[in-house]
Amino acid sequence: MHSFHELLEQFEIFFSKHKFPDSPATLYEPCSYLLHMGGKRVRPVLCLMGHELFTPLNDNSWNTATAVELFHNFTLMHDDIMDNAPLRRGVTTVHEKYNLATGILSGDVMSIYAYQHLNKVDTSYIHAVMALFNQTAIQICEGQQLDMDFEKRDIVSLEEYLEMIRLKTSVLLGTSIKLGAMLGGATEGCSEILSQFGNSLGMAFQLRDDYLDTFGDTNKTGKQIGGDILANKKTYLLAKAFEIVDVNQKIVLQELLKRNDQEKIQDIIAFFNSIQLKNYIEEEIENYSKKAYFFLEKTPVISSRKKNLLEVTDMLLHREK
Amino acid sequence: MHSFHELLEQFEIFFSKHKFPDSPATLYEPCSYLLHMGGKRVRPVLCLMGHELFTPLNDNSWNTATAVELFHNFTLMHDDIMDNAPLRRGVTTVHEKYNLATGILSGDVMSIYAYQHLNKVDTSYIHAVMALFNQTAIQICEGQQLDMDFEKRDIVSLEEYLEMIRLKTSVLLGTSIKLGAMLGGATEGCSEILSQFGNSLGMAFQLRDDYLDTFGDTNKTGKQIGGDILANKKTYLLAKAFEIVDVNQKIVLQELLKRNDQEKIQDIIAFFNSIQLKNYIEEEIENYSKKAYFFLEKTPVISSRKKNLLEVTDMLLHREK
Repeated sequence: MHSFHELLEQFEIFFSKHKFPDSPATLYEPCSYLLHMGGKRVRPVLCLMGHELFTPLNDNSWNTATAVELFHNFTLMHDDIMDNAPLRRGVTTVHEKYNLATGILSGDVMSIYAYQHLNKVDTSYIHAVMALFNQTAIQICEGQQLDMDFEKRDIVSLEEYLEMIRLKTSVLLGTSIKLGAMLGGATEGCSEILSQFGNSLGMAFQLRDDYLDTFGDTNKTGKQIGGDILANKKTYLLAKAFEIVDVNQKIVLQELLKRNDQEKIQDIIAFFNSIQLKNYIEEEIENYSKKAYFFLEKTPVISSRKKNLLEVTDMLLHREK
Repeated sequence: MHSFHELLEQFEIFFSKHKFPDSPATLYEPCSYLLHMGGKRVRPVLCLMGHELFTPLNDNSWNTATAVELFHNFTLMHDDIMDNAPLRRGVTTVHEKYNLATGILSGDVMSIYAYQHLNKVDTSYIHAVMALFNQTAIQICEGQQLDMDFEKRDIVSLEEYLEMIRLKTSVLLGTSIKLGAMLGGATEGCSEILSQFGNSLGMAFQLRDDYLDTFGDTNKTGKQIGGDILANKKTYLLAKAFEIVDVNQKIVLQELLKRNDQEKIQDIIAFFNSIQLKNYIEEEIENYSKKAYFFLEKTPVISSRKKNLLEVTDMLLHREK
């Protein structure tokens, strides 16, 4: 059994063995560029931890973890185009550094490499692994589509917003740990509980993102506070705000959203504070966190084996960046 | 055993059973839109024919044929963005009708549905089928990248051009029939010969495209003659021209390529005729056709079973549109 940081280190070594071909460099260099931008590698490590709950790691889970991380990066490359994002983790995005066509095609080929790794999984697991992977991949696309659809609307209900982030973000965390558990020999019931754990963790994880963007400490996040506000992005905070405001407050909020001046961020944060939004989002994060701990507790594995997963859960739920 | 047209009809029925979910409509409607634009369905039918050479059709090949056609359409959707194409088969392309993000994301999800169909293949075949499919998918991306890289260059050698169309177009035809053959129980040697047959057919097929764009009959092709010339596209004709011209002719050709007037097409065609390019491309197509017939002849299956494949080969090699 290994800690998050031990597995992270081991995964980076395994992952760095995956080399794209040298040619055409115009296709593959952008793939390596994105992968070397870093990232938390939460998904592959969750996959490995899911496996290690039951049996020592083997190539099935190393390859699946690699597939998950490659697929995740493929979605990032395409999402950045769709979201018109010039930067990711403070670094120029692929389509900005190269061009649009490169962002599309290098993303495409990266997704195929994900499937190539998946195909290394033993025959006895391949159908189940592929089925879950594909289902999740489809959900991620659906989530991204909803996210884009929401940008064109004035108001998104809380329920709609939560469903969107479930699809776009949380299912892949749930699936990562479930894939590991399946490959480690967990029963269907047991791996499904772990999937629920991962989903809940994923929801709390994404809501924490929304929280930090508005209420975070810029010295810790390394990002400008209020990026979501400036982009009029539909977040938990905005959806919740529209749910709880009265008719007059609603008019005030709508006027605030139309503004484009320097003080927009601070004025919207002041408005959010006036309706106690910070409490609401903290409570929501707390609810999903409790769910995550509940499902982890419920997982039929002796407590000592769950220690590392509990640690990573604490870490992810309390992150400041 | 069935003819091309019988299999085409049966495939359309099977293929139409594949329905995308209703929601999000913004994601799935563009997928259906592209699939209903039509297309020759050459690849899935080749897959079915490869299977039928050996054993009656079963779900393995129907699903693989579906995966191949979905994947092919995914590449078309993304290629149209990268090539800035407003029309495909005379109809508005997906990114033009909807928008860029839709073209990207609907393409992405369609490729995942291809893998979902592939995952229905029996366990005994799944690894080999996936491995070949992935390898080919990667080659298609590499071919598209080379095609785009070539657009930025003044001169592309014949060898480079042939390698590009091999990757971008011909490998998928070879792989389609090989997948069918593998699933039909062909030996590795036998299915490899069929792959060579399909590759050669694919080369002749693509060169025929280049031929028709310049020397075709607009009443039959339904397309304006000289589209490639107008776009200064690197084709067999241009690559061959630069290979055979002398120093003075090269200067003339380079000047012609710089032009943007109404007479550009007819003047370049006149230049091509002056250096007998039509003969060269006909000869090249003939060479690849002979190769295709040679590999089909060499396939260790009794002649009567190859009748339908021979017919489709004749049809594809002599198409006027």
